[in-house]
Amino acid sequence: MTAVHDTAASTPAPTTSAADLLAERYGAAHAAELSGPEPGEVLRHQLAHRSVRAFRSEPVSEDAVTAIVAAAQSAPSSSNLQTWSVVVVRDREHKSRLATLAGDQEFIREAPVFLVWLVDFARLDQLAGQHGHGLDGADYVESAVQGFVDVGLAAQNGSLAAESLGLGTVFVGAIRNNPEQVADELGLPPRVVAAFGLAVGHPDPERPARIKPRLPQDAVAHPERYRSDTQLPAIGEYETTIGAFYESEGLAHSWKERVLARLGTVAGLKGRDRARESLRNLGFPLR
Amino acid sequence: MTAVHDTAASTPAPTTSAADLLAERYGAAHAAELSGPEPGEVLRHQLAHRSVRAFRSEPVSEDAVTAIVAAAQSAPSSSNLQTWSVVVVRDREHKSRLATLAGDQEFIREAPVFLVWLVDFARLDQLAGQHGHGLDGADYVESAVQGFVDVGLAAQNGSLAAESLGLGTVFVGAIRNNPEQVADELGLPPRVVAAFGLAVGHPDPERPARIKPRLPQDAVAHPERYRSDTQLPAIGEYETTIGAFYESEGLAHSWKERVLARLGTVAGLKGRDRARESLRNLGFPLR
Repeated sequence: MTAVHDTAASTPAPTTSAADLLAERYGAAHAAELSGPEPGEVLRHQLAHRSVRAFRSEPVSEDAVTAIVAAAQSAPSSSNLQTWSVVVVRDREHKSRLATLAGDQEFIREAPVFLVWLVDFARLDQLAGQHGHGLDGADYVESAVQGFVDVGLAAQNGSLAAESLGLGTVFVGAIRNNPEQVADELGLPPRVVAAFGLAVGHPDPERPARIKPRLPQDAVAHPERYRSDTQLPAIGEYETTIGAFYESEGLAHSWKERVLARLGTVAGLKGRDRARESLRNLGFPLR
Repeated sequence: MTAVHDTAASTPAPTTSAADLLAERYGAAHAAELSGPEPGEVLRHQLAHRSVRAFRSEPVSEDAVTAIVAAAQSAPSSSNLQTWSVVVVRDREHKSRLATLAGDQEFIREAPVFLVWLVDFARLDQLAGQHGHGLDGADYVESAVQGFVDVGLAAQNGSLAAESLGLGTVFVGAIRNNPEQVADELGLPPRVVAAFGLAVGHPDPERPARIKPRLPQDAVAHPERYRSDTQLPAIGEYETTIGAFYESEGLAHSWKERVLARLGTVAGLKGRDRARESLRNLGFPLR
């Protein structure tokens, strides 16, 4: 970032107006109720986010990955512990094996770069061991929570940085489908686990992604104290907004059906109910 | 955001050059090794992040909070489950009680707004219950991981949005010091837990915060597979960079000492080793 490179110049902010971006995010009726500052380039890029699962074959430059990692490292880190790492996967065969382990999703093979974000206490374990100490605190639920939160903060900065460079991304939770095999594939030492993947590439303009509507803002933001009574009415309104979105995408389900399919029964976790055992196997006893 | 408000216009990107921002983030020697695209406004704001713990008394506008929440909701959400909420605390007494529970940190009282970010499966529980279903999947470690990651993605977008509006923020993990009391204070139903706080306000220019140096980029970014052998040399170099930073801040410790104080023994968790029990009490059995 100390020099300008023609091949990876920053893209301007999306040209869609803030009002239109909010209408896509909340539905026209709810967006009209919101007021706020006219967004600058940061907010505009954030509001314009959509998950991209269709990529052109054009490679992602090394410089872009450098920028993504610098953005990620610039996110806050609890007590400056920096308990995360990221593996940058470009090799075609390697990426394909990871795709197979992560729900066999084709867009992972299509993306030129697949970033695997790790909760990483091995680095600190090495540091402690060098000085004859243990890292007992890492064994507790608190440390796992801290690790998963911090890698989330880092990766979100990385994803937005990628989008600001004209790239598209999608998070891949399915990297948690087979934690031990993913650890083998990436050569992870104990006390390191893959938190999620992030496919990165140039969006294919012929297969564009759309902004996904979210719950009304007053359902998720509570003044002073949690309000349980606003939830069901808000969900009712949301079913209309998201229902129209799903239908336009050719998906024949409601939000309720999607929620119940995923969380209504253990089967919806698709094997990820093994997470506690997997984490223990990988050096996180979750005391 | 459908109208321009004079009181909360977007601030321009930080004027410090990218090279200088990188030199602060990585130390001059390591920054010089990095190349990448000339950053746009997004990346520049990200690189310029510093945690702000000193605020002016000027209030944070409702519009700014609307923008922060809209940015947060625009972050990716696993399977669109939207398993988080945020409580917006402005009331002075309420904020002071939360400050007491969260390590008795004065900057929480000083900040005009304290956002408490929640992992929230109660909303989906209500939805499932309305249709005579359970939410069995929420009981598993996998769902807690998903919830903590997703609230992290959301809050990081919110924090960066705040910074782009000229506000300063700091994440507060100490909200996890007393999970049950915080839940009482915020009126949380079962299956909701505070993940972290975020103090938000106008930075006090007379008590400025600085960019904190991070580990060399090649310690956290691994090409294709995890590299254990690069860690100790990188940590050694980092001790020099961060040591100079700590010294200039009047802090008489190394990074190693900080890491060991926090994670070397259970005592370093300062009571947060109770997290597993607290989460169970709050409706997260972590199966």
